[in-house]
Amino acid sequence: MTPHLASGNRKSLAGYAPQHFLWQQQGAVGLITLNRPERKNPLTFESYAELRDLFRALAYVDEVKAIVVQGAGGNFCSGGDVHEIIGPLTGMSMPDLLAFTRMTGDLVKAMRACPQPVVAAIDGVCAGAGAIMAMASDLRVGTARSKTAFLFTRVGLAGCDMGACAMLPRIVGQGRASDLLYSGRSLGGDEALAWGFLNRIAEPEQLLAEALAWGREIAAGPSFAHAMTKRMLHQEWAMGVDEAIESEAQAQAICMMTQDFHRAYEAFAARQKPAFEGN
Amino acid sequence: MTPHLASGNRKSLAGYAPQHFLWQQQGAVGLITLNRPERKNPLTFESYAELRDLFRALAYVDEVKAIVVQGAGGNFCSGGDVHEIIGPLTGMSMPDLLAFTRMTGDLVKAMRACPQPVVAAIDGVCAGAGAIMAMASDLRVGTARSKTAFLFTRVGLAGCDMGACAMLPRIVGQGRASDLLYSGRSLGGDEALAWGFLNRIAEPEQLLAEALAWGREIAAGPSFAHAMTKRMLHQEWAMGVDEAIESEAQAQAICMMTQDFHRAYEAFAARQKPAFEGN
Amino acid sequence: MTPHLASGNRKSLAGYAPQHFLWQQQGAVGLITLNRPERKNPLTFESYAELRDLFRALAYVDEVKAIVVQGAGGNFCSGGDVHEIIGPLTGMSMPDLLAFTRMTGDLVKAMRACPQPVVAAIDGVCAGAGAIMAMASDLRVGTARSKTAFLFTRVGLAGCDMGACAMLPRIVGQGRASDLLYSGRSLGGDEALAWGFLNRIAEPEQLLAEALAWGREIAAGPSFAHAMTKRMLHQEWAMGVDEAIESEAQAQAICMMTQDFHRAYEAFAARQKPAFEGN
Repeated sequence: MTPHLASGNRKSLAGYAPQHFLWQQQGAVGLITLNRPERKNPLTFESYAELRDLFRALAYVDEVKAIVVQGAGGNFCSGGDVHEIIGPLTGMSMPDLLAFTRMTGDLVKAMRACPQPVVAAIDGVCAGAGAIMAMASDLRVGTARSKTAFLFTRVGLAGCDMGACAMLPRIVGQGRASDLLYSGRSLGGDEALAWGFLNRIAEPEQLLAEALAWGREIAAGPSFAHAMTKRMLHQEWAMGVDEAIESEAQAQAICMMTQDFHRAYEAFAARQKPAFEGN
Repeated sequence: MTPHLASGNRKSLAGYAPQHFLWQQQGAVGLITLNRPERKNPLTFESYAELRDLFRALAYVDEVKAIVVQGAGGNFCSGGDVHEIIGPLTGMSMPDLLAFTRMTGDLVKAMRACPQPVVAAIDGVCAGAGAIMAMASDLRVGTARSKTAFLFTRVGLAGCDMGACAMLPRIVGQGRASDLLYSGRSLGGDEALAWGFLNRIAEPEQLLAEALAWGREIAAGPSFAHAMTKRMLHQEWAMGVDEAIESEAQAQAICMMTQDFHRAYEAFAARQKPAFEGN
Repeated sequence: MTPHLASGNRKSLAGYAPQHFLWQQQGAVGLITLNRPERKNPLTFESYAELRDLFRALAYVDEVKAIVVQGAGGNFCSGGDVHEIIGPLTGMSMPDLLAFTRMTGDLVKAMRACPQPVVAAIDGVCAGAGAIMAMASDLRVGTARSKTAFLFTRVGLAGCDMGACAMLPRIVGQGRASDLLYSGRSLGGDEALAWGFLNRIAEPEQLLAEALAWGREIAAGPSFAHAMTKRMLHQEWAMGVDEAIESEAQAQAICMMTQDFHRAYEAFAARQKPAFEGN
């Protein structure tokens, strides 16, 4: 089911029931579960498209203020399915191949464009397009046993998949990104934490709880301002420092017009904790 | 007192006595002390403007070759004062808000544009605009007990303040910067060192001495060349690699015309240590 | 001897015997050895030019699929020779200086433009232009006793040499790069590993073997795709995220047309390890 229009520009996810993954809303946190555990949650043409559509719709959904993405059964995602994706690709024409790589790229674009910060909860296998979805998230909680592999080279492809040559070096540094992209090797949880790919490590049985708690914390924050932070992290990617400073002067002035800014000041004056409403 | 013009384009800071912070010149090192220790050295409209004016003037001051910034009384800076800044902002019009955010951004622009490398000496609280001033410095010495927090989100604002969404990811990586900017949490000294936000850790009682020693070391170096290094780190921020290489070919050729380059060669031939003069 | 044209656009390195360094081809791995061990392998005007010409030629050489660079005698490279380069530079006109800095920059441009990933094997002294050659490589294996120093400031020059102000911050972060470029200090092997400058540490007697093994591993991979990874890491340096994603959609679609992609799928279906041929 496609998320439907609520009023005007806004959409609601009430009753939203995707076909190719699970969707649950817990308060203001939306939980996406990749759910083919017997295959370590691979992506298919259909799940790529449905995920892309959801992340695009989230731009118009006010009730969801943070997203958590996980995989079912102790693995995050094994990437594009060998039989359902790799096989068919080997027989495609260039226009069809480009339509495919653009669709996968559109998923990352949508994840970066949606206003909700995205927390990835990464356990077990996190490979190929799964590693990309983790990379395209804003924050990452993993387990010590998690294995993140940008393994495109293992199937004869380049490391430049869905933005990896742009984004991975900015997360872990150019030298470490080169290692991962040329080798396709697995990055273990502890190493990923030391490199800043993972923000935190949790015990496997605590992983989802910790990711959801982080999601709730974000959702309880000033959501309009958080969305501006996310937008500006994106917007300033390839901007000079002085231009970025002017852009932030404008963006922050906009945020100073919000009620949440007033709420925080009033709470401070009253020696209370502010209750943000995202407007 | 505004720094006055010396001869032509050059300015002198002789007798310079700012109203809203302390200024001391020790040889070629200028020491800025944020000095309202009973409030953990917050910034006000006036101190922002005066700091901006000083850093702008430094572009024309030859006698100062490195800057150290510290806070008095065991804290670096608590950021924009809640009563003197946050309160008034909640009642301002958009043009006035933008004038404010541009003024604060101009401080960072001036810190990045002045030719002197800036060493921040960070102890205790380093929050909000204080964290930004630390980030906008070239080098950072801290203490284990220092707490750096980009806490804009705590007052209902976005993390995109004064260039943070551009600069912080390049210092600590995109994932760690996202964590700090969405949560507003404190980054402790040891973690800040491990992440490369701090360059060094010192004992609190040794902090200023170590920062000043670093400042003297820099000031004893080839200042014209150091200023070129600083300018090019800024200039190449969003440039392609090949264009950066051409820019550096030009910049370094200019430096090869300096007397300091000749002095270094002659000292080497005479098996002596070169005495640089910054020209 | 200049590499000669084989057929049409392609070149062969058969019989290639450079005058100013050693060249050996071991299977598909080319080994460059800087070979003036009694002086710690400094660069001269002639060796710069010859290295630049080799890396430029490698763009047209199909038989070499990875490069390893080392220095002879327990040191990587001491940088531009004081007597043979620094001395003459002090007497040059601006046009000649610029011709020199452009030539050195052209070496880095050629190292970044050649399709073969470059593995630097770094032991002992790695200074000045030597540190730059290490930085300009794709991957770095070092020893605990290796000392990498961007020591331009020690000879009165700026840190902006051959792209260092652009590339070094992306490898180790902006703050750590500033430290290295302003101080010219040596970065030891363990610190370099912790910062992500080195990818791996090896025992000195195992260093070359490990670098060559890594080279062979890369050379056995999908070379056409590896070359695309290298090109895109370069191409996306200063591109926005969305533009990078579109560029990768095109680049990866091209790679999906290769035989190596088909070989990998067929090997997978047959439960075998793919044998890539680089086409």
